[in-house]
This record gives sequence, structure tokens and C-alpha cells, in this order.
Amino acid sequence: MKINNAAKIYNIVGAEAVLTEAADLRKYLTGLSTSFGYVLTDIDGTTFYTDSRYLEGAANALKDTDIAVKQFVAPLSNLLKKYKEVAIPVGRTLYNDYLKLSNDGLKIADSLPAFTSAMSVKEDYELAYIERACQITDKAFTSLLDSIKEGMTENDVAATLEYLMRKFGASGTSFETIVAFGENSSVPHHETGSRKLKFGDIILIDFGCKYGGYCSDCTRTFLFGDDKKHDDFKKSYNIVLEAHNKAKEEITCGMTGREADAVARDCLKKYGLDKYFTHSLGHGIGINIHEYPFISPKSEDKLLNGMVFSDEPGVYLEGNYGIRIEDTVTLDEGKVVSLIDSDKKLLIL
Amino acid sequence: MKINNAAKIYNIVGAEAVLTEAADLRKYLTGLSTSFGYVLTDIDGTTFYTDSRYLEGAANALKDTDIAVKQFVAPLSNLLKKYKEVAIPVGRTLYNDYLKLSNDGLKIADSLPAFTSAMSVKEDYELAYIERACQITDKAFTSLLDSIKEGMTENDVAATLEYLMRKFGASGTSFETIVAFGENSSVPHHETGSRKLKFGDIILIDFGCKYGGYCSDCTRTFLFGDDKKHDDFKKSYNIVLEAHNKAKEEITCGMTGREADAVARDCLKKYGLDKYFTHSLGHGIGINIHEYPFISPKSEDKLLNGMVFSDEPGVYLEGNYGIRIEDTVTLDEGKVVSLIDSDKKLLIL
Repeated sequence: MKINNAAKIYNIVGAEAVLTEAADLRKYLTGLSTSFGYVLTDIDGTTFYTDSRYLEGAANALKDTDIAVKQFVAPLSNLLKKYKEVAIPVGRTLYNDYLKLSNDGLKIADSLPAFTSAMSVKEDYELAYIERACQITDKAFTSLLDSIKEGMTENDVAATLEYLMRKFGASGTSFETIVAFGENSSVPHHETGSRKLKFGDIILIDFGCKYGGYCSDCTRTFLFGDDKKHDDFKKSYNIVLEAHNKAKEEITCGMTGREADAVARDCLKKYGLDKYFTHSLGHGIGINIHEYPFISPKSEDKLLNGMVFSDEPGVYLEGNYGIRIEDTVTLDEGKVVSLIDSDKKLLIL
Repeated sequence: MKINNAAKIYNIVGAEAVLTEAADLRKYLTGLSTSFGYVLTDIDGTTFYTDSRYLEGAANALKDTDIAVKQFVAPLSNLLKKYKEVAIPVGRTLYNDYLKLSNDGLKIADSLPAFTSAMSVKEDYELAYIERACQITDKAFTSLLDSIKEGMTENDVAATLEYLMRKFGASGTSFETIVAFGENSSVPHHETGSRKLKFGDIILIDFGCKYGGYCSDCTRTFLFGDDKKHDDFKKSYNIVLEAHNKAKEEITCGMTGREADAVARDCLKKYGLDKYFTHSLGHGIGINIHEYPFISPKSEDKLLNGMVFSDEPGVYLEGNYGIRIEDTVTLDEGKVVSLIDSDKKLLIL
């Protein structure tokens, strides 16, 4: 498969040259994960300039593409001498870097809107990577359930889960795994620690992996045994699940992020739980774990077919319990298709 | 232990207010790992503004410190109304963010030099975190050796190593683990893949973990059995090890990064191997895996007691083999002290 995203961006931007440094945008253009480099596209084609650590690897990986690979030799201004105008992702550019370019007399155009729109609608090969990341995520979770035992720490559970994702083919996690036991679940982004698991505990796990450089995102909340003291939690769980499912049923192509968020929020409101839903319903997922579009009460981002995002309503009752149920989903032919479709009826281990 | 880095930075900077958003600098000021927030210090003290995901956790974690925790309510300009001047880390600030502040009529001062110097010289509590991360790294590597078997993929080895670091207490990796078998070792930053291990293979592993938010960094190169075809590799290994050790013996407080780099580079030169040493000798390590000081042929960074950095000479013979030997080290009383001090005589499994 031949990625030609650099040409795509160049054509949308319409500037004399397009210069890209940000790691995620560079990955989008080259398909490679690197920690240093510049991608430069002009009328004659695209060149990836990088350093000796990546040179051999990049040359091998890109030998059948339209992207040339060259060693970067400072200063950057040498590469840009022949242009009057260069497009950079302005919203992602450091103040000092912007200044250097404009002080060199270059007219600056903004490539970021082109990246944002192109990267938010996934091509088939991108969707395939994300689907695979989601399958690994789901399979690892199922395997994990067998190893959860009383006395394990949150860290132990995170370690096991990350190992399983790696074993099933992931290149790593897409963010720091969150494992929260018991009352720790009421902190939406709890820092996984040494709290030990005991009978009757709530377990909340927010996790994801990377495959081919693309992310998955998933949250599961369940019980480690039923101590019969969780009636209120169980009631809330079913309400959050109803909101999660309603979002899947009712979100359609063409909605704004605000309208989509309201589907789940209004459902929680019916039961008086919306005041505990303290974050937004979702965010785009791709090379980055958080990217365009954003599905929040104020978002005017337009949801389109081919976008991939999270559906993650949650409620958090401080010092008591938290619940979040999250799948990575995509819009296909106008409707939501879940990429992690395991059963979400309340699980009691 | 009471971290008061915000007051320290405020006093060095000397501006009316210090505003910090970058995640690593925010971590330095608050001790907390968060993906969103602003730290604001003025004459009256320090406040950490964050969102609902972190509010409860941050309030708990910081309750015995001098840092107040409040919910962030946009826009940012509301927080800054009362100031004429605000310091931000200019070299880490996006063009648009800089413009917004200066358009609000604020005089901008630069806090980055203060952060760079303060963060590069580690306090005892920081050193303790890094030492622990290094111990975990070393212990995980020793445990890993028992599980390496013929037929394992590079990914399998990475998965096992990461699991072990987690199991021994790490919160995650400090960067994507590099495992390279055989000829893949000649790519300095090889992308870990599905190459299977066979008898006689070189194994190069570059890995590290995080503990308390601080990083370790380590590289080991060794043989999976001796097929008697590696005479040149073995000779080179001993030379790289000599360069690695010479750096430990001769680097002293007060040297520049350039002078320190030359210690190892000159040693390789004696044997004609310096042309294969295609990267720099080292980089500072702390909250970030790469930070000030840089130990490279052009660096004028001054090495000081309490700094932590890598000592990682390497040689890469394209398509043939690569060798890198790396420890995380610190400068104490003028001399290098290794924080990962396992035996580095060529290991043959």
C-alpha cells in the first residue's frame, strides 16, 4: 500500500512548499514513527530529512514510495532558500520557530486545517490499523479477567494488561493505563498505584494500545465479587450503559460534537445523573489518542463518515464510586459502528 | 517531602507572575502527572488550575503543600487580568498562545532558562526516583535473560521486559522499547518488529522505565549463543566498552558537553571506529527522557554536580551489526557515578 498523504496535504494547502516537523503529522506523511525530522513537499515531490539514527531505517521503509530520504544538515534555512512561501501547521508551531521562518523573509501559510480535516477522516488502511488495535485491546481484556486475583495491586493489573496487549501484537500503550480499585474509581483520571484488590471492589480500567502507529481507547467498569453493598452502583451502571448505547444508536453523520454529546448527557439527565458526568462524551482517535473531532457540550466539530472517536459517558461520585463505559467507534454510512463490541452488561467476577 | 519548585522558579525568574502549561514543567512544579492544567505563581503563592478529571486527585495529593488547587474556567485571560507582566517558557510556547498573551497587553518574560537550569541539577528526592527507576531497569534486564528463547520475536522480548519493569514497580516505559536482533542492530533506532531470534544472533535492547515520573535509560548489546562468526563484533564490543568506561572515568564537573563527548569519541578514533559513532554520547535525563544537558560534539552545555545523563557510545556497521552500551549516570563530587552498574563484559547467553 502506497501512502501519498504528503501530496494530498500539498494539494489542499496550495502553498509553494509545505514544511512539517510535528511528530504526529510527520508520521501521517511518512508512515514512520520517528523522534526527529522534517518533511518538505514542493512541486517536485516530497523529501524526508532526518538524522543518522533513522536514516537507514527510513530509507529501507520508504524505498518503494514517492518520498525521498536525506540526512538533515542544519540550519533549516538552507532547505528553504529557494522558496518565497512555506506552509507550516501554525497552531502547532513554537513561537521561536515561527519567528525564525518569518525573519528569513518567508511568507507563512497555515497547513494545520488541511491536516486536521485529512487526518480526521480515516482511509481504509488507517481504519484497518485502528480496528486491529481495538481487537488487541478487547482480546487482552478478556485474557486479563482470568488473572485478576484478590491482593493484586492496581499496578499489577496494569502490568498484566499491558503485557497481554504487547503479546497480542501491540507496539505499546496509547496512553498510561488507568487502573482504579474501589473508591479510587471516583477520580476520572486516577493515578494507578499500590491499592490492593479486595472482595467486592469496583474495578475501573481505562486502557488502549497502538498498532501500526494508531491508537485504540477503551474503558471497562466491573465488580470483583458481589458483596451485596453495591445497589446504587449497579443502578448507575445500567444508566451509564443506557447513555453509552443511546449514543451509539442516535449519533449520525452530520451532527455537531455538541449535538452528539447531548445524546448521552440528556439520557443521564433523565435520571438526575448528568451532574456527575464531569467530562465530555468523546474525542477523535487516530495517530493521537486525543484529536479532532471533539464531542463535548461546546463543540461545533462536524461528525463525518470515516471519523473514529470514543463514546465514553461516565459518572463520578466523589469518594464513593465512578463508572465509565467506553468504546472506540467509527461512523460508516451515516451510523455508528463499534470497533470494540464486547458485551457490556455489568460483569461480576 | 514538600516540593517547592514553583517558589524556586518564581524567585529565579523575578517576573510579576509565572504561568506554566507544558506537561513536564507542570509536573516539575506540582509533582503530579496530568494532561491538562496551568500553574500560576505570584507574590501571594501558587495555584494549580486543572479540569474535572484531575481536580479531586490533585486536591488530595497537594493538600499538605503550598499549592492551591482550583478548577480552570476558560478563558485563560481571566486569570491574568491583574498582571502587567507574565513569564512563560518562551522556547516551549506555541506561536498562537504567545500572541494571545501579548495581544492582551501583557509584557512577556521568559521562564525557560530558569526551568532548564533548575531541572538539570537534581535534588535528592529527584535523584532517589531516578535511582529507583534505574534499579528496576537493571533488575528487569537480569530477569529477562532467563526468558529469552530461540524463536521469540523482537516484540515478544519487548513485551516481557516491559512487563517485568511494571512488575518491579515502574509506572510505564520512559520511551518505546527498542529490541533489535541480528543485522537489525545496525539501525540505531530500529523499530521493534517480528524478526525471530536464532542461534548466534546479536541482541541490542534500548529500554527504560518511569518511577515517580522520572526516567531511566539503558542499552545492552549481547549474543544469543556463540556461532564463532562474530570475531569482528567481539573486537568492536570491547572497544565500545572501553569508550563507555573511559567516559565514566574521565568526565568531570565543569566540562562542556563537547569535551565530554570527545572523551568517548577520541577513544573510538584510536581504533578507527569513530566514523561509525553516528550519534552523540549522551543527553540529560529526568522528567523527560531527553533534556538538558546535551553531550554532543557541538554542545557548550556545562556539566555540573547533580546532573543526570546517559553515557552511550555506539557503532553501527550498516547491514552488518550495531553495538551500543548505555548507562544512566550522575555527577557527584565532581566524578561520574553510574546508577546502573551491572557487569558489561560481553554476555553470551
